[in-house]
Amino acid sequence: MIRYPNGQIYKKEESKKKNKSSTELSISSANRGMSFENDINVSNEYYKDKDICLITKRPTPINVVKVDYSKGAKITHAYFEEQSTTDYNGVYKGRYIDFEAKNTKNKTSFPLNNISKHQIDHLKRVIAHGGIAFFIIQFELLDKVFILDASYVIHFYEHEERKSIPYSCFLQSGIEVERSYNPRLKYIDAIDKLYF
Amino acid sequence: MIRYPNGQIYKKEESKKKNKSSTELSISSANRGMSFENDINVSNEYYKDKDICLITKRPTPINVVKVDYSKGAKITHAYFEEQSTTDYNGVYKGRYIDFEAKNTKNKTSFPLNNISKHQIDHLKRVIAHGGIAFFIIQFELLDKVFILDASYVIHFYEHEERKSIPYSCFLQSGIEVERSYNPRLKYIDAIDKLYF
Repeated sequence: MIRYPNGQIYKKEESKKKNKSSTELSISSANRGMSFENDINVSNEYYKDKDICLITKRPTPINVVKVDYSKGAKITHAYFEEQSTTDYNGVYKGRYIDFEAKNTKNKTSFPLNNISKHQIDHLKRVIAHGGIAFFIIQFELLDKVFILDASYVIHFYEHEERKSIPYSCFLQSGIEVERSYNPRLKYIDAIDKLYF
Repeated sequence: MIRYPNGQIYKKEESKKKNKSSTELSISSANRGMSFENDINVSNEYYKDKDICLITKRPTPINVVKVDYSKGAKITHAYFEEQSTTDYNGVYKGRYIDFEAKNTKNKTSFPLNNISKHQIDHLKRVIAHGGIAFFIIQFELLDKVFILDASYVIHFYEHEERKSIPYSCFLQSGIEVERSYNPRLKYIDAIDKLYF
């Protein structure tokens, strides 16, 4: 077992079954997952600079245990905490916007096992207070990005036995997000179609 | 020079000039500054539970340099980063809310030296996109808390030579925030008076 600097565990058993190209694919697709978040962040910068909307990423909450003040406030002991809200929020046309971004390698559905009860409760509250709440989901292997109103995710999370949302639901009720050079993800266009 | 665990520096020279009671006052007032943020956080919990609004504190941004994955993702080297936005944002009656909380020991004015250019730019954008932007300021030694629309802070920051906002401005254009047992700071009442 090899541990990469980013904490991912590389299983030898799996690699034996695969040929070199499939290992490369796996690494490049991991990067694509990372770059999805980066695509959103860069798009947010574009939207901010063009005065279109103001959406910011919430910093990852970190529980700081120990700080060494003799070295200019160097944190020497801390842990990542679970995000109890969502990754992004902000304002567009006076409305409150709140969303979670997820990447999936699944081709037929979006699994809900990475969504916490806290996040579902948070999104229900956003809707109750008149905010706009949605998920932006990248189906990495299909090269498709959708926004889907949070009410669908809440419904599947709370009422359906299968803990995943079928791809057909995204085709029927979601809005596809187009890519461009700048912004990389034209998700405000999708918000316009869905909410305005 | 003594360093406290919270990083504050205790100067012996100063303590020599003061008697014991004034040192105690200084420590207790530092706590009151800390507890102001806590009062807001606890009030936000109350407002959330009562379905009145949904306001969350942005986590402090931390630049993670090194993580030890052999010890369950223990962060061993990191630094605090400057917050480029504000401390709090959320949704109330469908509107986007964004504010910064500050405590001051000053009795006659609120000094702007702790406000960064980034924060001013952020608040200007919030206003431009139709959001509600304000400061909540505690004048600790006067035992008074006000909300003041961010436009005043932006004006004083950009156009006035004196880098502080006189207390009289809070009396004239701000709204005083009442304290209660629960919520500790009834700042939503002040928002209602100022914006709704």
